[in-house]
Amino acid sequence: MSTFDDETRLQRLAPDAASFAGHVHPGWNIGTNPNGGYLLAIAGSAMRELVPQHPDPLSVTVHYLRPGLPEKPCRVDVQLLHGGRSKSTLRATLVQEDTPRLEVLAAFGVLASEAPPELTIAAPAMPAPEQCLVRSADEQGVQLPILDRIDIRLHPNELRAGAAGKARVSGWVRFHDGRPPDTLACLLLADAFPPAVFGLLGMVGWVPTLELTVHVRRRPVPGWILGRFETFDLSEGRLVEDGALWDSAGNLVAQSRQLAMILRGGR
Amino acid sequence: MSTFDDETRLQRLAPDAASFAGHVHPGWNIGTNPNGGYLLAIAGSAMRELVPQHPDPLSVTVHYLRPGLPEKPCRVDVQLLHGGRSKSTLRATLVQEDTPRLEVLAAFGVLASEAPPELTIAAPAMPAPEQCLVRSADEQGVQLPILDRIDIRLHPNELRAGAAGKARVSGWVRFHDGRPPDTLACLLLADAFPPAVFGLLGMVGWVPTLELTVHVRRRPVPGWILGRFETFDLSEGRLVEDGALWDSAGNLVAQSRQLAMILRGGR
Repeated sequence: MSTFDDETRLQRLAPDAASFAGHVHPGWNIGTNPNGGYLLAIAGSAMRELVPQHPDPLSVTVHYLRPGLPEKPCRVDVQLLHGGRSKSTLRATLVQEDTPRLEVLAAFGVLASEAPPELTIAAPAMPAPEQCLVRSADEQGVQLPILDRIDIRLHPNELRAGAAGKARVSGWVRFHDGRPPDTLACLLLADAFPPAVFGLLGMVGWVPTLELTVHVRRRPVPGWILGRFETFDLSEGRLVEDGALWDSAGNLVAQSRQLAMILRGGR
Repeated sequence: MSTFDDETRLQRLAPDAASFAGHVHPGWNIGTNPNGGYLLAIAGSAMRELVPQHPDPLSVTVHYLRPGLPEKPCRVDVQLLHGGRSKSTLRATLVQEDTPRLEVLAAFGVLASEAPPELTIAAPAMPAPEQCLVRSADEQGVQLPILDRIDIRLHPNELRAGAAGKARVSGWVRFHDGRPPDTLACLLLADAFPPAVFGLLGMVGWVPTLELTVHVRRRPVPGWILGRFETFDLSEGRLVEDGALWDSAGNLVAQSRQLAMILRGGR
């Protein structure tokens, strides 16, 4: 058993209901808030339950309405919007204490792990995980309990604030307990690295995600996931961060883009 | 008056209802289907009506469930999911003949047109509109009535199939009737160019959008909009297309990303 599977597990509230009960575990916290990718994986897990014929998230967009609550129960209400042969489109609302926290709109389908892509984005050169640096469990005084769940190794040239000379963060990630990555886990792993803007500006404050879209493109093979996240566009305190994930065979497995705010100095 | 404003106009069904009635005009067709960006602009117009204090779409995601119907009435049902000081989060469903066609999830807020960005993406070099080539109103036998509404000029090196040597399409766009671009129009203009993949593979068939996310970043100044669209990732018949729009002063005004299917040979 894996902590990720255990701690995203849901119970259907009734055989014919599209509502699922779960629990938000504090082990995935960033400071005192649950990681947004973890909450998205819980919602994604509920959506997948509803359409077992379409187990892979092809395109998932989440808007974070309010912070999640660690160590509290949650409910995920799912609605099938359109069911087709090759994909299902669904929405989901993650609710805690009777208040919506996440709103998700997604298409699920079936991805391969063997078909060669016609066009793809090559994985960047990266020192081996052993040559990379473990992400610090204390960032600007904020504790990162999530690092007991996932092992993040950052590119040695990009770790120090401003060292990359650009808004880029890259490195390796895997579950500490050896669980292999899958397409559901990509929703978490697309939001597990430090904000790319730290690479340019240093740890300027809290960078809460307003909206995140993940396109999963392929089922990953077992092993480390390589991630690269970059920000080219920062204006009026809002930034766009582009990300990509590759599996240990060098295949592009997901692309992500998020809109986030910079709350300078604050958390 | 502008055709875009006329043909995205909605009537609120009751003073306290969040439902709006409109009409899908055939002037925005690609072949016999309404352009997806036009339908998104209708839905966005309804969302904006509900939150007049937040007139600018910051992040808009649409899933296309079924093709729209030209020359038919439509209804847009809007739900406010979260109202904050700096943004409102909403969902909308565009319905025709009692069947949902588009599902939209969006955050609206207030954008500036003057604040200098901290990081931005420079506009690519582009010949003047007069040196570019008018997008043909007949693509692989498909009529493009939308070209009577918007004036699209393509980079002369990228027009012929495969000529760019990469999956890229770029050029200029504006309304034929002189209406200046605004942040709502960016939703249309982010989906008005030919598929970027035509630049590499030729006109391979129909490329329907499954999902489109537009991040509007700034209010455009009047004049031409420069657009660039690229595909780096095509696998199992599904592609990711990245786009960006700049205003006539060279400011980045929007980024877009869509997941589309290639139906080779088909329409």
